[in-house]
Amino acid sequence: MNTERLAQQIAFLLEIDKLKTVLRRTYLLDDPRHENSAEHSWHLAVMAMLLAEHANAPVNLLHVLKMLLIHDVVEIDSGDTYIYDVAGNESKAAREQEAAKHIFGLLPDDQREEMHRLWEEFEARATPEARFAAALDRLMPMLHNYYTQGRSWQEHGVTDAQVIAHNGHMAEGAAALWEYAEAMIKDAVGKGYLAEAK
Amino acid sequence: MNTERLAQQIAFLLEIDKLKTVLRRTYLLDDPRHENSAEHSWHLAVMAMLLAEHANAPVNLLHVLKMLLIHDVVEIDSGDTYIYDVAGNESKAAREQEAAKHIFGLLPDDQREEMHRLWEEFEARATPEARFAAALDRLMPMLHNYYTQGRSWQEHGVTDAQVIAHNGHMAEGAAALWEYAEAMIKDAVGKGYLAEAK
Repeated sequence: MNTERLAQQIAFLLEIDKLKTVLRRTYLLDDPRHENSAEHSWHLAVMAMLLAEHANAPVNLLHVLKMLLIHDVVEIDSGDTYIYDVAGNESKAAREQEAAKHIFGLLPDDQREEMHRLWEEFEARATPEARFAAALDRLMPMLHNYYTQGRSWQEHGVTDAQVIAHNGHMAEGAAALWEYAEAMIKDAVGKGYLAEAK
Repeated sequence: MNTERLAQQIAFLLEIDKLKTVLRRTYLLDDPRHENSAEHSWHLAVMAMLLAEHANAPVNLLHVLKMLLIHDVVEIDSGDTYIYDVAGNESKAAREQEAAKHIFGLLPDDQREEMHRLWEEFEARATPEARFAAALDRLMPMLHNYYTQGRSWQEHGVTDAQVIAHNGHMAEGAAALWEYAEAMIKDAVGKGYLAEAK
């Protein structure tokens, strides 16, 4: 056994424990606390297992799972950036590149490169797998919002126009899921969970 | 699109949000709270991606990931059973079978059967994938214990003999990782994190 290699792998696994303390804006469905990015990543991975049939193009599920499992680990250094936060999103890319260098740098060279490539692929949304993974990453918070009567949308003054503008790319990865989301958005407005843009 | 099928899939995904509120005995490394089973499942899945090369036999990583991602969802109904809890483990199988019937029963038939089979395969540890997945499920809590100075071991009066007896099957899935764990157990005793059996 290469003990130095295993020691590097374990160091990375210990470091990413911190993702369990990075809080998102979303609330859990049955507990009045914010969701953390580790449990969110798990939820998306299970979602991918079950909803892969709804992707626009056939996807390599293993590849989708790998991307989803590590897509948020850079937040350990950079924090979660709310998708409706304009200023935060302007500086997001630079902050996350720095974070990726540090976190993936804990791994042996070959795995550092693989993780970094997976993360960049997810961010770029240029492959069917990345577009599908990104669609799930958008659908899940909408479900959380809808089933908590729009709590997070309301706290941040988000409107239906913003939700449509920021999540519409779902259609590129999974048109059927975007269709489902559009109906949910409309229903959320009707129920008063989500404000209508003026 | 089959909307009935998608509705069943979404109902399952909403139900398993509850796994984020099922607490384990383990503590996080940098936060004095217990770990929940959803974030634990995520951590194991990332671990599988990175440590698959240490499995005794070549494993199908997608299959390992699927098992790890759903291996704990039955706890939503049955609760987490501490591995050193003798009485709890006597009733565990029956409680979990009931839970599996309910939770996986939310899914369309084909997916209900697939998830149920994956969960049973994990529990039975009869395939290389299940043995490797089970090895990771044992290594991670040991790492958490070791790097929190044995906090959970001490709170439950666990001894080195118990740790070895309950985790030794790791060697069947990943001998190299069990070797690593054995050294850690010995070191934990030396440092006073873990009590020596009399």
